[in-house]
Amino acid sequence: MLQETQRERFDVVLVRPRNPLNIGAAARAMANFGFSRLSVVAPFEATWREARSAVDSQDVLLNAREAATVGEAVKGATLVAGTGSLTYRKPEQRVVRLAELPELVSRELGRGGRVALVFGPEKHGLTRDDLSWCHMLVEIPTDARQPSMNLGQAVAVCLYELAARADAAEVVSGPAPVESGRLELLAGMVEEAMEAAGYRAGAMREGERRELRLMLRRMTLTAHDTRRIMGIFRRILWRLRQGPGAGR
Amino acid sequence: MLQETQRERFDVVLVRPRNPLNIGAAARAMANFGFSRLSVVAPFEATWREARSAVDSQDVLLNAREAATVGEAVKGATLVAGTGSLTYRKPEQRVVRLAELPELVSRELGRGGRVALVFGPEKHGLTRDDLSWCHMLVEIPTDARQPSMNLGQAVAVCLYELAARADAAEVVSGPAPVESGRLELLAGMVEEAMEAAGYRAGAMREGERRELRLMLRRMTLTAHDTRRIMGIFRRILWRLRQGPGAGR
Repeated sequence: MLQETQRERFDVVLVRPRNPLNIGAAARAMANFGFSRLSVVAPFEATWREARSAVDSQDVLLNAREAATVGEAVKGATLVAGTGSLTYRKPEQRVVRLAELPELVSRELGRGGRVALVFGPEKHGLTRDDLSWCHMLVEIPTDARQPSMNLGQAVAVCLYELAARADAAEVVSGPAPVESGRLELLAGMVEEAMEAAGYRAGAMREGERRELRLMLRRMTLTAHDTRRIMGIFRRILWRLRQGPGAGR
Repeated sequence: MLQETQRERFDVVLVRPRNPLNIGAAARAMANFGFSRLSVVAPFEATWREARSAVDSQDVLLNAREAATVGEAVKGATLVAGTGSLTYRKPEQRVVRLAELPELVSRELGRGGRVALVFGPEKHGLTRDDLSWCHMLVEIPTDARQPSMNLGQAVAVCLYELAARADAAEVVSGPAPVESGRLELLAGMVEEAMEAAGYRAGAMREGERRELRLMLRRMTLTAHDTRRIMGIFRRILWRLRQGPGAGR
């Protein structure tokens, strides 16, 4: 069993949900399995209003937070897991079976981290850009003839698995994990350094930015690593901005 | 993984569902996890019509069977498992956690049996009478503050657990299990024998009939046991009907 204080470090994130019934169903599944922190990314305005005004609207829904982007919604998380079936895409990060998730979540919460579990919109699931924020992709083992799950049911299945099998013992030692928002700061510094080193401003296209983001997540940096690397880049940037030859 | 021929011996039974969306959601979850046999017990006529005429109606739904009673829907099953949370009731049969279900289902399908997983209506779940047809009650580990799950989500969670973990190796030897319909025939003979022995006709009330039904399911009879006991009762009945003293 996850402890109450550990559940408070676990977020469910719904990305651009289209159907208010699905948002309500996701919130209900959260309440069923004892989770309470819901974020909704860029919901359609009418959808969001309708979901929150339903008569049986849950506390989970009334306390939900709204975010403009996936990056904003997961910025406090040290482990971000996207969900989906793999039928239509080739993921660029580690893929784990849902049955493996409880242990990974237990470990992350046990060492004081924060976890975000991210669900895509109903029809098409998470985009490549959404996925670039994820350390891993969780695969729900659906049938190849009908792989795509209803959103509320996918949330229920994932949270059931966690409620039934995640069990985080608090670990005292070990390096602190790094939050998603910190990694994005680092990515920004790398980009600035590239510009300062002579890359044309704005030269970094969305695709490259996504790759950098993914690479930083594959590296499983600790908070300490990240601080060090940022220190180095800060120094590089400062020197680059003095102009060539300034250090001589 | 369950084999295709084993999945054909697994039925999902929805009892008196009220909401067509839930029937559709249950059918979709079945398709997601590779199950195809759906029975619906005494659905509200409009609900049933609406569910089957939905534009995205699944094959599962179009091939679903309709039954008047739970007894009729499960008559071919050798293991009947009811589902629900235990907050509001004290069950009269064995209770297992959902995590234990895959092994029980694997064993039953492995020895050539047929399994029915029974879901109650949205608001109140299975009644005592519905439950009297069940060998066991499966508990989904929901939070005490919000124990009651949405029907479609409950179906998804149970079938996920089975799809992820049930794995039936075919067992060649071992006694054949007995079908629910055979047990009900035996119960009928016991009742006839009681009447023939002088109990007032129709004296057996619903509650007693339910207890007899449960008792026969607790005994885990094999097909052979059942045939023998029925033979004995047939003989008793024959003798009783000859009237007192006929055997002398």
